[in-house]
Amino acid sequence: MAQAPTAGSEFDRDTAVTSRAPGVYEADLSPGWSILKALNGGYVLATAGRALGLALPHPDPFTVSAHFLTPSAPGPAVIRTETVRTGRTVSTGQAALTQFAEDGSEVERVRVLATYGDLGALTDEVRTNAKPPAMPPPEECFGSSDGPTDVFGDSTLLGRLDVRMDPATSGWAIGKPTGTGELRGWFGLADGRDPDPLSLLLAVDALPPAAFDLGVSGWTPTVELTVHVRARPASGPLRVAIATRNLAGGFLEEDAEVWDSADRLVAQSRQLARAPRAKDLA
Amino acid sequence: MAQAPTAGSEFDRDTAVTSRAPGVYEADLSPGWSILKALNGGYVLATAGRALGLALPHPDPFTVSAHFLTPSAPGPAVIRTETVRTGRTVSTGQAALTQFAEDGSEVERVRVLATYGDLGALTDEVRTNAKPPAMPPPEECFGSSDGPTDVFGDSTLLGRLDVRMDPATSGWAIGKPTGTGELRGWFGLADGRDPDPLSLLLAVDALPPAAFDLGVSGWTPTVELTVHVRARPASGPLRVAIATRNLAGGFLEEDAEVWDSADRLVAQSRQLARAPRAKDLA
Repeated sequence: MAQAPTAGSEFDRDTAVTSRAPGVYEADLSPGWSILKALNGGYVLATAGRALGLALPHPDPFTVSAHFLTPSAPGPAVIRTETVRTGRTVSTGQAALTQFAEDGSEVERVRVLATYGDLGALTDEVRTNAKPPAMPPPEECFGSSDGPTDVFGDSTLLGRLDVRMDPATSGWAIGKPTGTGELRGWFGLADGRDPDPLSLLLAVDALPPAAFDLGVSGWTPTVELTVHVRARPASGPLRVAIATRNLAGGFLEEDAEVWDSADRLVAQSRQLARAPRAKDLA
Repeated sequence: MAQAPTAGSEFDRDTAVTSRAPGVYEADLSPGWSILKALNGGYVLATAGRALGLALPHPDPFTVSAHFLTPSAPGPAVIRTETVRTGRTVSTGQAALTQFAEDGSEVERVRVLATYGDLGALTDEVRTNAKPPAMPPPEECFGSSDGPTDVFGDSTLLGRLDVRMDPATSGWAIGKPTGTGELRGWFGLADGRDPDPLSLLLAVDALPPAAFDLGVSGWTPTVELTVHVRARPASGPLRVAIATRNLAGGFLEEDAEVWDSADRLVAQSRQLARAPRAKDLA
């Protein structure tokens, strides 16, 4: 079973779900996690992920695939889960998160297919080739109050997070993108809540778009997001490095790696997003 | 609608589906696509993908997420599709591929969530940062008959493919893995059928495991596979480069990039696989 929410944490309060019937959960999506007036995809996914952790016999997301259908809005949501297969070490389930239109009908926001396991039961063997991103310490990085504040004018998400961006990948904020398509920064929650497997689903989607470093501005809505959670993160701040390498045909992919304070690569993700319309391109 | 199968092609013959009822299709999985006695995941996914292309109003896979539940076997299969959402430029659907146990009950092999669109309708703008892999020409690469033939003893898949591996990433076949976790090669179908969006679902899962280059031997069954199809591939051979960077806790990820003869990055994928058990590690 999933862990009980950490009392008082914004993340746990706003991703909380209550069981309405077997496999059916209710949530109340908070307006506090929006970016440019749309609820952050990782926040919505984490909420659906919490329901799946309660519905399935294994507690932790291992690999989560989400197809985003319509933008989520603050307000009530219903999450209907289905158990696809239960096994000894992993189980697979599906979740459909819907919200209510003005006429009371349900509109599906995201469909999730996920395999859960027990991160505590993984072997200790770690032969990771990848290396953590080199970044200055947090005090030398840019917080949301350090740079231009007009970039994300109507975004409440920034108030929930403590993100410090590496100056080397922040040129875009003053009109000087590097053209490499990479961003990286320190990631924490503003109220100090430690990371856990569920908050990793948020962390992979919580930095500014990597496309900003290509000189592309404007919204890049996520079409699909797959997250692999590879280890229970240690306490303390995370380092998130994102990169896009294939902006083409009106779409782009964005890869994210999340490293914990013990230098473990705790999560990897890739999303497919729509590129802004041509008139938005710098 | 999906294109009519290319007459006579092994891939089209063996991924063919027939409609049994609205949204329900039948297939007959062929024993010709097995690796070490298990049907190749990309082949099974391509078959489910064909059904989705018929069921959805858009013909081409854009982003496909598959959770593999139990190993597929040669023989009859049923693919039940559900349309999740239809839109103007993309549609999302789900597919459950099942086979029959000895007692006649159905066992689900793979559950797929996919968003389809029209690759022919994408904009022409290509700003891909990534570069095609540098490889010797096919005649200087190793075909399946060039190296040790005992590595994949009971594998019929090799007879369906024309794969030529870069010698620089083939040391593992003679006990000399580089330790980098990268493999690359030319990819084609043995009968010369040109690539298309559906065959890309096979191409991303058709090379030997990248883990072999870490000195890891043994089967690495796929738990989850997400494929992004980014462009309709040009005629001619494909180049496939795969890499694993995070072997840890009994699992590993494997990324694949597929480049066509026009130097377009036509597909990107990531799979999560189980690492062989410790006793199999070199």
